[in-house]
Amino acid sequence: MVSHPGARGLLDDAAVLGAFVLTHDTIVEGVHYLLKDPPRTVGWKIAAVNLSDLAAKGAEPAGALLSLALKNEPGWEEEFLAGLDDACRHFGLPLLGGDTVALPAGAPRVLGLTAIGRAGPVVPSRSGGEAGDGIWLAGTIGDAAAGLALLQADPSATGPLVEAYQRPQPLLDAGRDLAPHVTAMMDVSDGLLLDARRLAEASGCGLRLDLAALPLSAAYRAANGEDRDARLFAATGGDDYALLFTLPPAADPFTLLKGSSFTLACVGELTRDGAFALVDDLGPVPLPGRLGYEHHPS
Amino acid sequence: MVSHPGARGLLDDAAVLGAFVLTHDTIVEGVHYLLKDPPRTVGWKIAAVNLSDLAAKGAEPAGALLSLALKNEPGWEEEFLAGLDDACRHFGLPLLGGDTVALPAGAPRVLGLTAIGRAGPVVPSRSGGEAGDGIWLAGTIGDAAAGLALLQADPSATGPLVEAYQRPQPLLDAGRDLAPHVTAMMDVSDGLLLDARRLAEASGCGLRLDLAALPLSAAYRAANGEDRDARLFAATGGDDYALLFTLPPAADPFTLLKGSSFTLACVGELTRDGAFALVDDLGPVPLPGRLGYEHHPS
Repeated sequence: MVSHPGARGLLDDAAVLGAFVLTHDTIVEGVHYLLKDPPRTVGWKIAAVNLSDLAAKGAEPAGALLSLALKNEPGWEEEFLAGLDDACRHFGLPLLGGDTVALPAGAPRVLGLTAIGRAGPVVPSRSGGEAGDGIWLAGTIGDAAAGLALLQADPSATGPLVEAYQRPQPLLDAGRDLAPHVTAMMDVSDGLLLDARRLAEASGCGLRLDLAALPLSAAYRAANGEDRDARLFAATGGDDYALLFTLPPAADPFTLLKGSSFTLACVGELTRDGAFALVDDLGPVPLPGRLGYEHHPS
Repeated sequence: MVSHPGARGLLDDAAVLGAFVLTHDTIVEGVHYLLKDPPRTVGWKIAAVNLSDLAAKGAEPAGALLSLALKNEPGWEEEFLAGLDDACRHFGLPLLGGDTVALPAGAPRVLGLTAIGRAGPVVPSRSGGEAGDGIWLAGTIGDAAAGLALLQADPSATGPLVEAYQRPQPLLDAGRDLAPHVTAMMDVSDGLLLDARRLAEASGCGLRLDLAALPLSAAYRAANGEDRDARLFAATGGDDYALLFTLPPAADPFTLLKGSSFTLACVGELTRDGAFALVDDLGPVPLPGRLGYEHHPS
């Protein structure tokens, strides 16, 4: 049954059913968030990561179903639900229902959310890009990975990078405004290099990415600098929830998105050959061994 | 945000969004299925339990999203997916997408499915029953619990009771035909006594249930007999996926469901006081301490 057209080969982040877009993300304690992360931020994050998938489809939040596999730790659960409620109110995502189950002693929490969005007039996929299209990013990358590194060094760390890791902001407005114009779109959750390669492969293209063009925040540059190593760290870190999209060469997103307040940057192009060419202002850059987070059992 | 009308107070099994009904069930290894259960039957079951929630809403299967938190055990996963595919094909449920994540070593598998159904003209809730309504069951109860007991005594056990435990059959046709006529409906998944009390409470009623009227299969009666203890075992065992519904006293489901092939039985009525009266042909029956499975962390 995975050949259903709504599945898009299960390759995509979200499924389309009638006027709705559906997505599900599951996060595991100790894998997708730190055991020490404040539970309120975990609740925010599970909503935000699903909303980011809706943003990449240009969809408006319509509702969510929650799946909780929990320990018996009522204080944690209350704070988690408060954080989820924060995000649901902030982004207008009604919590419609779900399921709560008990875990055997010692098992890590597994938290899932299905988010449902109302589709706009166009629902982009990640497979519609064509050779010659520009590869663009809305939002900065690297902040969350830098925030995680700060927390791993000092659990009491705070600031905009930690905030980016713990309370990501899905770019719903940008996704809605971009959707009618892009040839392909997806969110960057597992690392730019990995996700960009996925978009190129789904589109039957190769790609050229320019590290020098990466949109880095002032906070990121202040903490990590902006040399090649810093840019490779940002491009493979993941948890960004920026939007990655492709546009025909003639299109100009700065005129498409007049008045928008997020960073827009052209970071490369889709190419006709199947290769992945990474460059910066010094020339070709060898592809790192790890392009991002592959979420498969290991 | 839990006050959204589609949530029905989160008390219900399924949410309603536009023309769709949404439900999510999560099952945990060692809690909701046995580690030794054949993975193909686990795949079947996760589809069937969600489809049973759609059946209780009178909805037609439209699609599903899968959430898998897995160990690295490829043979298990392939068989699980084959069983899921069996059920998806059998009941016409397209698998639209989902998420697969890795678990830390030693953690039990957590498997979730969100099922989406197309709503019929009427979507019953569990809260619409009124005092005086008859309480009815479509399908038999106790078979799955008896099958589980057989497997616990002998892992190589087979037969219709084991089949009922491992490959439950959601009553989609019955649900669709009953939905326009019932005052309330839900599926029996956690035990008849517990689920019937939930329906009565949601409807603001008490209830009287007659154990002597329970629909028991021939296989159940052959294995466990049909005395009071056998009937209490069936009424608290869970995993039945029968449909529990209420009808005004004048309604006759046998004429509503002409030609149907499943068991129909009137097992009691909703009452005006808040009490739970359990009886059988010998008189009042004390309520057992455990009415069914409460799936909360313990």
